[in-house]
Amino acid sequence: MRMVDIIEKKRDGKELSTEEIQFFVKGYTEGTIPDYQAASLLMAIYFQDMTERERTDLTLAMVESGDTIDLSLIEGIKCDKHSTGGVGDKVTLCLSPMVAACGVPVAKMSGRGLGHTGGTIDKLESIPGFQVELTSEQFIQQVNDIKMAVVSQSGNLTPADKKIYALRDVTGTVPSIPLIASSIMSKKIASGADAIVLDVKVGEGAFMKTVKEAEELAHAMVTIGNRVGRKTIAILSDMSQPLGYAVGNALEVKEAIDVLKGEGPEDVKELCLTLGSYMVFLSGKAPSIEKAREMLKDVLNSGKGLETFKAFIKAQGGNTAIVDHPKLLPQAKYKIEIPAEQSGYIKKIVANEIGVAAMLLGAGRETKDSSIDLSVGIVLNKKVGDFVEKGETLATIYSNKENIEEIKEKIYSNILVINDKVDKPALIKGIIAE
Amino acid sequence: MRMVDIIEKKRDGKELSTEEIQFFVKGYTEGTIPDYQAASLLMAIYFQDMTERERTDLTLAMVESGDTIDLSLIEGIKCDKHSTGGVGDKVTLCLSPMVAACGVPVAKMSGRGLGHTGGTIDKLESIPGFQVELTSEQFIQQVNDIKMAVVSQSGNLTPADKKIYALRDVTGTVPSIPLIASSIMSKKIASGADAIVLDVKVGEGAFMKTVKEAEELAHAMVTIGNRVGRKTIAILSDMSQPLGYAVGNALEVKEAIDVLKGEGPEDVKELCLTLGSYMVFLSGKAPSIEKAREMLKDVLNSGKGLETFKAFIKAQGGNTAIVDHPKLLPQAKYKIEIPAEQSGYIKKIVANEIGVAAMLLGAGRETKDSSIDLSVGIVLNKKVGDFVEKGETLATIYSNKENIEEIKEKIYSNILVINDKVDKPALIKGIIAE
Repeated sequence: MRMVDIIEKKRDGKELSTEEIQFFVKGYTEGTIPDYQAASLLMAIYFQDMTERERTDLTLAMVESGDTIDLSLIEGIKCDKHSTGGVGDKVTLCLSPMVAACGVPVAKMSGRGLGHTGGTIDKLESIPGFQVELTSEQFIQQVNDIKMAVVSQSGNLTPADKKIYALRDVTGTVPSIPLIASSIMSKKIASGADAIVLDVKVGEGAFMKTVKEAEELAHAMVTIGNRVGRKTIAILSDMSQPLGYAVGNALEVKEAIDVLKGEGPEDVKELCLTLGSYMVFLSGKAPSIEKAREMLKDVLNSGKGLETFKAFIKAQGGNTAIVDHPKLLPQAKYKIEIPAEQSGYIKKIVANEIGVAAMLLGAGRETKDSSIDLSVGIVLNKKVGDFVEKGETLATIYSNKENIEEIKEKIYSNILVINDKVDKPALIKGIIAE
Repeated sequence: MRMVDIIEKKRDGKELSTEEIQFFVKGYTEGTIPDYQAASLLMAIYFQDMTERERTDLTLAMVESGDTIDLSLIEGIKCDKHSTGGVGDKVTLCLSPMVAACGVPVAKMSGRGLGHTGGTIDKLESIPGFQVELTSEQFIQQVNDIKMAVVSQSGNLTPADKKIYALRDVTGTVPSIPLIASSIMSKKIASGADAIVLDVKVGEGAFMKTVKEAEELAHAMVTIGNRVGRKTIAILSDMSQPLGYAVGNALEVKEAIDVLKGEGPEDVKELCLTLGSYMVFLSGKAPSIEKAREMLKDVLNSGKGLETFKAFIKAQGGNTAIVDHPKLLPQAKYKIEIPAEQSGYIKKIVANEIGVAAMLLGAGRETKDSSIDLSVGIVLNKKVGDFVEKGETLATIYSNKENIEEIKEKIYSNILVINDKVDKPALIKGIIAE
C-alpha cells in the first residue's frame, strides 16, 4: 500500500477502505508516513468529505493507536458527557454530581484548557487541596463508592488524534466535519464510556456558527458513536452569549455550586437538566427522559447533588468548606464594577470577546506553557433580553492588576444595549439522536 | 504574514496576493515554511485553482528563487521550444538545426530523462565524443557562430520549482493546471528565451488525455508567457501513438537525421515544420507562418538543416561521421523482428506501453540513479491506419539481452490489428495563441 495512492483516491472523491484508513493512521502515528503526506490527505478530506463508514473507521483507528480505559470494574452503565466548548461552560462541575446523585456512575477524565479560561481540571484545582491525579484503582474504587471521580487525562490515549490535531492546526484543516467528529469521538470511546451525551454549542461564541453546521457535526458524531455500539445523543445548545454569568476558573466553581444549591443562572441549570436527563435515561436509571428530569430536579431540591459534590471534593482531598464559604476559593485583589452607560435592553453579549477579556486578565492560557490565574475573570450581571438601567452594574471584573482599561473597553464594546425590547434566545436548539 | 492564513485563504477559494505567493515560494525554498504546510497549500490549489494573475505570480516567484540565464549577448530573438513529453519525441534533435538554419538562434538547455527513454541530453550522448557541458562563454559564442548549441542544464535554475515538484510527486498534487503550467513556464522563463513555442501532447500516451484538458493547460501556459512579456504559442499535437517509428536513444538520433535528410517519418517531419514555422515567425525571421514553413522546407530540401546539425555536432566535439554512417552510433547486440500475427489495419499502438517496453529493454530510467542503455529500443514498422500483411514485420526490437519474451508479448498486446479500414489520426489538434 502506498500513501500517495491513498491521497489520490481521496482527492478523486473515492471511498477509502478500512485497511487504507488503518494504514494511514498507524503509519502516521509511528512516523513512517511523513507530515507532508498526512497534510495533503487531510486537505483532500476537507474537500471530499468522508462517508459514515470511513468516519467510523478513522475514529476506531485513532482509538486503537493508543491505550484505552477499561471501566468494566465499575458497576452500571457509564455515561460520559462532552461539550464542543464555549465561554463560561462550567456544566461538568454541576452536572456530574447531579447525575451521580441519580445513581449514574461518573468516571470522568478531563483536560486542562487552552483559550479563554482553563478546562475542568484547572477549575477543580481552584479548590484548595484538590487532587486531580488518582491511580486507576483509586479512580475505580471512588466511582464505586460515591459514584463520581474526575481526574486529569493520563496515559497514552489516542496519540494518533493528538498528532493529527496538531498537524490540522497548522495546515488549515481544522474546520472539517469528519475530522472534528472523529477526533472528539475517538477520545470519548478510548475513555471507556458506554453511553455518550454530546453538548454541541451553536452561535457566535462557538466553533459552529449556525444550527445547520452544528446539526451536521452532531449527526456525524452520533452516527459514529452508535456504529461502534456506544449509545450517543447530541444536544445543540446556544452559545450566542456566554453560558451563565461567570467566566473565570474559581468564579465558575462558585457559580456551579450555586446551581447545585438550586440557585445560580437559569441557563446553566436548564442545560444541566437537559443533558442530565439524557445521561440518566441512557444509563438506565430512569424509564423515560421526563422521569429522569424529575429525578434531577429532586436532586437539586433535596440537596443530594450538593452532598455528592461535597463527597467528591472530600474523596479527592479538597476542602469541602468552600461549598458553604466560597471566599475560601482563590480571590482576586481588585473587584471593579462596570456600570451601564445607557438604559435599555441587552441585545448582544459577544461571547468570544468576553472570553478574550477573561484571558487577558489571566484566566486562560494563550499557549500551552502560559500560567493561569485561577482567581480572575468576569461576572456578567445581565444576559441578552434583560433590561439595564443607566449606572446599574453591567458586569464585574475580578482582577489582580490595577490597570484594566483595555478590559473595560472590551466589555463595553461587546455588550450592546438598545432601546427596543429584545427576546431571550432559546437555550436548546435541537436534539440529534441519530 | 502566516502560512496557515495563506492556506486557509486559498482553501476558502480566495485569490492570493502577489506578496502572499512570494512569501510562500521564498519561505518554502529557504526552508522556513515546512513541507506539510506547502503540501496542504498545494492540495488547496488543486481544488480551488488559481487566477491568471496568481499563476503568473507563482511562475515569477519560482523564476526569482534561483539563477536566470542571460542570453542578451546572443544576437537576435531567442526562441525556445518545450514539449510536455511523450513516447518517441525526438523533435528537438531535428527541429533545432532546421530553425537554426533559418537564422533563429537556438540556445538550448536540456535535461536527462526519467521514464521511457532518455531526455535530449541522453540522446545526444549517443553521438561518440559529444560534450553536453560548455562554459557560458563557449555556449554563447557557439550560438553566435553557428546559431545552435544544446547543453545540459546547469546552475541553480528555479530551485523552488524543483522542491515543489518533488513534493507534488508524493502528495497527489501533480495533475493541477496552475501547478503544471507555472512549473514548465518558470523553467522556460529562467532559461532566458524571448519567445516560447510549446508542444502540448494530447492522447493516451500523454499527460493530457483529452483535447479539452490539453487546451486548458496550453491556454494557462500561453497566458503566463504573454503576461511576462515572452511571446508564447502552443501547438496541441497527437500522442495517441508514439511519434515517428523509433523509441530509444541512438535509434531516435538516427531517425532525426533521416528527417534532416528529407526522409524519415511523415509525422515527425510535419510536427517539425509546424513547430518550426512558429519559432521562425516569432523570431522575426519570416513575415508570416506560411513563409516560415516554406523556408523550413527549403532547409530540408537544400540539406542546410543537415549541414547545421553537422556543424553543431562538430562544435560540441562529436563525431560527424555518424550522419552518413549511422552504424557508428551505439548498436544493440540483438535485432529481433516481430511479425504480424494477422493481416489487417493498425487500429491502436498504445504509446505508454510501447514506452514501457523500451524502458524494460534499458532505454529509459526507472529511478534517477538507473543507468541507461543508449543502443536499445523499439522501431515500429507501421503506424495507426497502415495495413499490415500477416508475417510482415510489425516492429523491430533492438536489445542487448537475448530473452525478450516479455517485451515481445507487450508489443503484441499493445498493437491492435483489425479487419476494417482505420483513418490516420490528425497530428495537429489545435493552436493556442492566447
